[in-house]
Amino acid sequence: MIRSVFNSSGKASVKVALLRNNLRRNMSASAITNQEFRVETDSFGEINVPADRYWGAQTQRSFQNFKIGGDREKIPEPVVRAFGILKKSAATVNENLGTLDKSIAAKIKLAADEVAEGKLSDHFPLVVFQTGSGTQSNMNANEVISNRAIELLGGELGSKQVHPNNHVNQSQSSNDTFPTVMHIAATTEIANKLIPELQNLKDALQHKVEEFSSIVKIGRTHLQDATPLTLGQEFSGYVQQVENGIQRVQSSLYHLHFLAQGGTAVGTGLNTKVGFDKLVAEEVSKETGLHFETAPNKFEALAAHDAIVEASGALNTLACSLFKIAQDIRYLGSGPRCGYGELILPANEPGSSIMPGKVNPTQNEAMTQVCVQVMGNNSTITFAGSQGQFELNVYKPLMISNLLSSIRLLTDASKSFRIHCLNDLKANKDKIDENLNKSLMLVTALNPKIGYDAAAKVAKNAHHKNITLKESALELGVLTEKEFDEWVIPENMISPKP
Amino acid sequence: MIRSVFNSSGKASVKVALLRNNLRRNMSASAITNQEFRVETDSFGEINVPADRYWGAQTQRSFQNFKIGGDREKIPEPVVRAFGILKKSAATVNENLGTLDKSIAAKIKLAADEVAEGKLSDHFPLVVFQTGSGTQSNMNANEVISNRAIELLGGELGSKQVHPNNHVNQSQSSNDTFPTVMHIAATTEIANKLIPELQNLKDALQHKVEEFSSIVKIGRTHLQDATPLTLGQEFSGYVQQVENGIQRVQSSLYHLHFLAQGGTAVGTGLNTKVGFDKLVAEEVSKETGLHFETAPNKFEALAAHDAIVEASGALNTLACSLFKIAQDIRYLGSGPRCGYGELILPANEPGSSIMPGKVNPTQNEAMTQVCVQVMGNNSTITFAGSQGQFELNVYKPLMISNLLSSIRLLTDASKSFRIHCLNDLKANKDKIDENLNKSLMLVTALNPKIGYDAAAKVAKNAHHKNITLKESALELGVLTEKEFDEWVIPENMISPKP
Amino acid sequence: MIRSVFNSSGKASVKVALLRNNLRRNMSASAITNQEFRVETDSFGEINVPADRYWGAQTQRSFQNFKIGGDREKIPEPVVRAFGILKKSAATVNENLGTLDKSIAAKIKLAADEVAEGKLSDHFPLVVFQTGSGTQSNMNANEVISNRAIELLGGELGSKQVHPNNHVNQSQSSNDTFPTVMHIAATTEIANKLIPELQNLKDALQHKVEEFSSIVKIGRTHLQDATPLTLGQEFSGYVQQVENGIQRVQSSLYHLHFLAQGGTAVGTGLNTKVGFDKLVAEEVSKETGLHFETAPNKFEALAAHDAIVEASGALNTLACSLFKIAQDIRYLGSGPRCGYGELILPANEPGSSIMPGKVNPTQNEAMTQVCVQVMGNNSTITFAGSQGQFELNVYKPLMISNLLSSIRLLTDASKSFRIHCLNDLKANKDKIDENLNKSLMLVTALNPKIGYDAAAKVAKNAHHKNITLKESALELGVLTEKEFDEWVIPENMISPKP
Amino acid sequence: MIRSVFNSSGKASVKVALLRNNLRRNMSASAITNQEFRVETDSFGEINVPADRYWGAQTQRSFQNFKIGGDREKIPEPVVRAFGILKKSAATVNENLGTLDKSIAAKIKLAADEVAEGKLSDHFPLVVFQTGSGTQSNMNANEVISNRAIELLGGELGSKQVHPNNHVNQSQSSNDTFPTVMHIAATTEIANKLIPELQNLKDALQHKVEEFSSIVKIGRTHLQDATPLTLGQEFSGYVQQVENGIQRVQSSLYHLHFLAQGGTAVGTGLNTKVGFDKLVAEEVSKETGLHFETAPNKFEALAAHDAIVEASGALNTLACSLFKIAQDIRYLGSGPRCGYGELILPANEPGSSIMPGKVNPTQNEAMTQVCVQVMGNNSTITFAGSQGQFELNVYKPLMISNLLSSIRLLTDASKSFRIHCLNDLKANKDKIDENLNKSLMLVTALNPKIGYDAAAKVAKNAHHKNITLKESALELGVLTEKEFDEWVIPENMISPKP
Repeated sequence: MIRSVFNSSGKASVKVALLRNNLRRNMSASAITNQEFRVETDSFGEINVPADRYWGAQTQRSFQNFKIGGDREKIPEPVVRAFGILKKSAATVNENLGTLDKSIAAKIKLAADEVAEGKLSDHFPLVVFQTGSGTQSNMNANEVISNRAIELLGGELGSKQVHPNNHVNQSQSSNDTFPTVMHIAATTEIANKLIPELQNLKDALQHKVEEFSSIVKIGRTHLQDATPLTLGQEFSGYVQQVENGIQRVQSSLYHLHFLAQGGTAVGTGLNTKVGFDKLVAEEVSKETGLHFETAPNKFEALAAHDAIVEASGALNTLACSLFKIAQDIRYLGSGPRCGYGELILPANEPGSSIMPGKVNPTQNEAMTQVCVQVMGNNSTITFAGSQGQFELNVYKPLMISNLLSSIRLLTDASKSFRIHCLNDLKANKDKIDENLNKSLMLVTALNPKIGYDAAAKVAKNAHHKNITLKESALELGVLTEKEFDEWVIPENMISPKP
Repeated sequence: MIRSVFNSSGKASVKVALLRNNLRRNMSASAITNQEFRVETDSFGEINVPADRYWGAQTQRSFQNFKIGGDREKIPEPVVRAFGILKKSAATVNENLGTLDKSIAAKIKLAADEVAEGKLSDHFPLVVFQTGSGTQSNMNANEVISNRAIELLGGELGSKQVHPNNHVNQSQSSNDTFPTVMHIAATTEIANKLIPELQNLKDALQHKVEEFSSIVKIGRTHLQDATPLTLGQEFSGYVQQVENGIQRVQSSLYHLHFLAQGGTAVGTGLNTKVGFDKLVAEEVSKETGLHFETAPNKFEALAAHDAIVEASGALNTLACSLFKIAQDIRYLGSGPRCGYGELILPANEPGSSIMPGKVNPTQNEAMTQVCVQVMGNNSTITFAGSQGQFELNVYKPLMISNLLSSIRLLTDASKSFRIHCLNDLKANKDKIDENLNKSLMLVTALNPKIGYDAAAKVAKNAHHKNITLKESALELGVLTEKEFDEWVIPENMISPKP
Repeated sequence: MIRSVFNSSGKASVKVALLRNNLRRNMSASAITNQEFRVETDSFGEINVPADRYWGAQTQRSFQNFKIGGDREKIPEPVVRAFGILKKSAATVNENLGTLDKSIAAKIKLAADEVAEGKLSDHFPLVVFQTGSGTQSNMNANEVISNRAIELLGGELGSKQVHPNNHVNQSQSSNDTFPTVMHIAATTEIANKLIPELQNLKDALQHKVEEFSSIVKIGRTHLQDATPLTLGQEFSGYVQQVENGIQRVQSSLYHLHFLAQGGTAVGTGLNTKVGFDKLVAEEVSKETGLHFETAPNKFEALAAHDAIVEASGALNTLACSLFKIAQDIRYLGSGPRCGYGELILPANEPGSSIMPGKVNPTQNEAMTQVCVQVMGNNSTITFAGSQGQFELNVYKPLMISNLLSSIRLLTDASKSFRIHCLNDLKANKDKIDENLNKSLMLVTALNPKIGYDAAAKVAKNAHHKNITLKESALELGVLTEKEFDEWVIPENMISPKP
Repeated sequence: MIRSVFNSSGKASVKVALLRNNLRRNMSASAITNQEFRVETDSFGEINVPADRYWGAQTQRSFQNFKIGGDREKIPEPVVRAFGILKKSAATVNENLGTLDKSIAAKIKLAADEVAEGKLSDHFPLVVFQTGSGTQSNMNANEVISNRAIELLGGELGSKQVHPNNHVNQSQSSNDTFPTVMHIAATTEIANKLIPELQNLKDALQHKVEEFSSIVKIGRTHLQDATPLTLGQEFSGYVQQVENGIQRVQSSLYHLHFLAQGGTAVGTGLNTKVGFDKLVAEEVSKETGLHFETAPNKFEALAAHDAIVEASGALNTLACSLFKIAQDIRYLGSGPRCGYGELILPANEPGSSIMPGKVNPTQNEAMTQVCVQVMGNNSTITFAGSQGQFELNVYKPLMISNLLSSIRLLTDASKSFRIHCLNDLKANKDKIDENLNKSLMLVTALNPKIGYDAAAKVAKNAHHKNITLKESALELGVLTEKEFDEWVIPENMISPKP
């Protein structure tokens, strides 16, 4: 079944290495000559496929027909791995329900395991911008597992001894497998990667709350000097934001834990046996160690991806939180001499190619860029999520690609920000004290003593004459020096009165 | 205290045409004629205020300084009413804590009740595009309640006998009151208006599920003919979407039920008594009949509005769902002769000014427009939600205005769509049957019998020769007529096999 | 033809004033009793209409069927006025082409003029969230002009002596009139309101460039101290942004100046005479004093609103510019004692209800909120703009409503920001000098003298020891005091070397 | 200068498995085995760099400090190539101005050419989510060119014989080089790739206009049957959209053709010679064959990226157009038996893994997914574009990455859609005729003959009785058979009357 493109005798003579490297690098097979190919078939007929790849005819067609975006836009690896998990689970269930031969099922499961472990990721060349159901990516999984299983059985690639549709895809449709892997991929990435990193981030912030708990500083509202708080209190707001963020993201896992599998083509479950859906969800749970259930309504699960939109909404909210935190910290660290200067950020690299000695809040900049990307991804996901048509939403690859991008970016950035910015973040005690002492808003402590209007006069007088509050208060004669010293104590202004 | 703008003697009676016109245009102060003004004061000094309005100096300054957007952009009424609820609650708590004179508290509560009931809404002239803390809207509430309370006490407006800051705003800051009313307003509108209408919508859809439960129709994936399902099954997907939507919106109420009140200026609770925060939340719960709690971290509650972003995310997801439903229904109703034609939408008005007899899916168009607006509002809210700075987010009026717009539009559109479209929606049984019978995708039933590849040939042969599936199958000799009739039964294709 | 709802004898007895006030206030006619109505008819039959309103049956149906969003969501007035302009123009052309009776045309033109002048705006009660073609708003215009023209002729309202379809809407369809008024409304608002205010804003900024031209200050990149520039140079960047913004907005007028009129129902121009389209564009040009042309392709003009998306894109870019300017200025004005403090913003109102004497950058907050709203509007418009279907886009009212909102908000905010913030904006020379003198980044001037690496050491040494640059340089022995004084002169660092 | 990480003696040969794995994973440094390292230095000190890479210390630091997003998020290649163009141009100008040694300049130019040709792209490992000024990517270019130039001179890598800052980056700052390469990259990709493909797309659509010019079909507004037009007319709307799109994109090149180069650190041009800016723009023009000019205001060019936002807005509008076109075509091709069925799309691959014989509009799905991604990218770019701070916008890598993504996706998808969908798109004449003949909206032709109201009755009567228009008209007696046959001729309904 092996033959060269240019040599129909079938005598290979070619450097497959070259091909492999080319494929690995850019998958633009255009200029490849003297390679080996084998013929694969589907209902459209024959087509040449690179000899050292497991994929089959449908993958090849999609690869050729959708040259859009290049490597950057390849189907994300978590989706590929989720296909491995799903195909193994489906084979197990089919075997148990008596519709799949045990020996075939065994090899499918071995091959699927390899996909799940990422060992065959190089055999998934398709991009996001293909058919909106991900049909060819489902077929890619079917074909790769089929051929790898055939190989394990000692058969000939392309022989369909283990058939991609009849065996690997048994009881399944792209229309239910792709949404299923969307949920598996999103759930595992969130549960296993994002949430642990958010927890780490929260812990690091909490550590700062404690470290900064006794540093009283000036507060700022509208960017203007306001009443004091501790630096620890300021950071406690960040902790609360991240804690809420974790809660929001976890809460979005609820609808993600429902799997479309068992709906097949349009949601009715045609060509499945009763119970197939529930059993697959159980198998997937076993494989992932996470809890999944079959979706209560398969029509919704195929035609809408509201659960993806919801999850993206949680990430979007989280992005708002992290933006605020990173933004605050870079402004508080601005300077070193002409800014707020209350925090000292770690210096990780030279800041300027022209200004010697400059150090910049680069981790904060990476984080805020990530947050903005996540918000844009959310726009994409929202639009796509609204566009289901009748029994199918055909923006599936786009939606999961953007969601996984958001998950990964937030995970990586949370870790990077924690390690390279937060851990060595220091308070600039001198500058904090200086600011606190010269502020005018300590006057607020006088409201209950001399009333809002008199207090306002004290503050304005101090401002206009560029004198201290105390000087102003005494000048205006609204209280005695002793009273001032007793009443205006920043440390007493950071909590309610008993 | 009453005097004309142009007559400092205090003898009123001058028509200030220009100002009056402005007022009439900008706030439709309907009955203003022969207008008189009184002088109000704040820490900036004196200013003229329309004599028949309760507001004071700060409201007037903001009214004059922010002529942006006109009537359309006035602070939404639910915010005004929430201020009434809050100010009453705060007065009660202050009275109980012994910091507010009982007789003053009594009148504040009466006046605040009027605000809560919407009786004084004409006295809230400010627009959304003002200071981002909503300070002047808080002062608007303080001033209106102050003057109305003074009036109830028989005093002179503007006398500050009941002081807007010292009494009405006692223990409060704009920075904690405005986020508190944001949460009160959003929660009450969602709980009392949106969710009930969504429930009604879900019920109406569920009614259709039952009505359509035995109508088998062709499914469509990628817009292409697919395997059959019942019209009831199709609608069951919509029911699931709305049910999930209700769940999502309810779930977003969790973070909304935490109130910022008690944080005062920067979150520390300066100038409150210990316990003030919890007690206010209890009072607000009593007043609204909904459960509120004091926010566990006031710094987060002032500086971030992640709860608003989260709620908007839930509405955004809901908008995706409703868009899909309304879009499906209008396509299914397209025609009457040259479209899908499977549904018959009620004819509510002439559809065209040039094409006689035309009827259009106008409710669907209103609904999809609403959904798109909600998505845009979500973009606005997201951006604004990320922009908190230090101790304060100064996009408060913008955020709540957009959120309330989304809530109202979704509420109204759900109701309108239900009454004017769904209730009288009919299935076009003839067209549905015609489509079902001529479809080729019934061939899928043959997969388990003759295999995917043979089945594909039957379908393609029928397509190319424009013959029926049965004719094609018999022509290709892949099965007998009896087998075909036994195997290809749409009614048997709408569920898993036992 | 007049009869009361409850009194079929036709004997009126009712307070119309009440109705009128109610209508004016909220248009929720539900609880109105004992009013007078007249019967209007359309192809659906008879319907009661308030006796004191000119609108007819179709308006009334839409008013009743689309109770979505309330007053806030009424069709914007510029659209109503543009209908007046268009209907007058069409009547003129029809008259000239000999298809419309001269006496009828004359009254239509008079009535249309009243609409164009805004005199009949109270007779346009419909909301944005109606049919997506704006059909009922076109009929609203036809009906109001019809009845007003009938009144001018001395006829009976509702008699159709001047027929809304046959006369007022002659040669027209909603499908071409509504896109036409979208373009007329957007163009006139941009040309007559937005651009002049942007020009004013640019002039005000340019004035500051000159005022601040000799004030050398520290630059900031990544929020960190950088090399110096003048405050005038900093503001010159803002001037450039606004100038480019004006150019962008003007450039978007190009596609807006093409009118759909003449396409009628689907773009073919059915039921128009050859030349009608061009002649209408000429009339509209005369009426508005702005240049309009007939669209070269009417199919595009009905089915897509790319020109609206494009214009919104220009406003979106402008919003980015204005956000940056307002954001910079509020940070530069932060303080008064614990912030950047380089600018002094005018104090327009008390800043805090709890912190006496506080003044906030409220105009900047209004401006940035406006910008964020414009960006959200752009999301809405983008989505809607993509959703044309076959011969028609049915998001017309939504698109123009959002676009006009953006135009108005940017116009009003530009004016407000200019008057209440920019005009009295002052440089804080003392603070600017203090910052400049203590900065370390003046070291950059030494690059060409001692090299980047040595210069970096000087800066770092100064930073770590908290000494001046000069002290550090001398301590490290990399140059002499004389050299330092000659080489490090901020005033010489603000331009290229000759 | 070469030494192993773990062996300070300088005797290489240690396998640093961990780092190697990281490299392999993150940057697919394909052939790395037995890796050696050399020491590179910057103002932060020494650091190990892979021996077979040209990059230096700062690149390495950023590579280690920003592990965010993986390969997918690497700085896009057009940016790398633009750095080659720029660095060559700067070297030429510095040489001509006499500040750069000729022999060094010569080697810099050779090395820069290799970067511009993409030969050294494997030496640019950094990701988008780094410092927001792109400083380390500028240094990456400086370091790679420095070391490659040193190699060409026969020197030792890392020796700084050709210094990355003093020579390669001479007269430059990251703050002006990065915005410059943003504009170069965007302009070349738009001018050389996107616009030609859009032109091809337009031509292909225009070809269809001609092919379909005599096929009269039913129009559809609100998805409902409307008056007829030709299929060619329908496609002419698409041609107009793409033509306008080309115009919009071209128009956005105007602000992109201004280069920031010469502004250096903050826009003042410190450390450049007068004229450097203009000369660089001239050199870049020569190198690219495209016209560039120096930006009239460098402060704007560094601190804002409105030109990028503007260009993204043009792409966003284009995405709306292409979405509409692709969406229309897939709906018109829906079926084959139960949809609109008026177009026949080419069958490129099997459409379903479960439904045999199914063919789907996959190119349309790829295109609409691309369009939605572009809209999301526009959200990202908009937000980022608004966030400039003082003298610098620090979202540069994010902005250009998203813009280049949009450009590439639109280019690739336009080509794919043209080749695999448009070229072989066929009209289904039978179905088109069938639809046309049964439609009721041909009644519109009767408006001028019997009036709108009578015509409406004819249409409604036909609809309710399910008879033809002619039957209905005759039954109602509103005209004779002869009149009907003369008046209702679809071919006469597709243009204005003479």
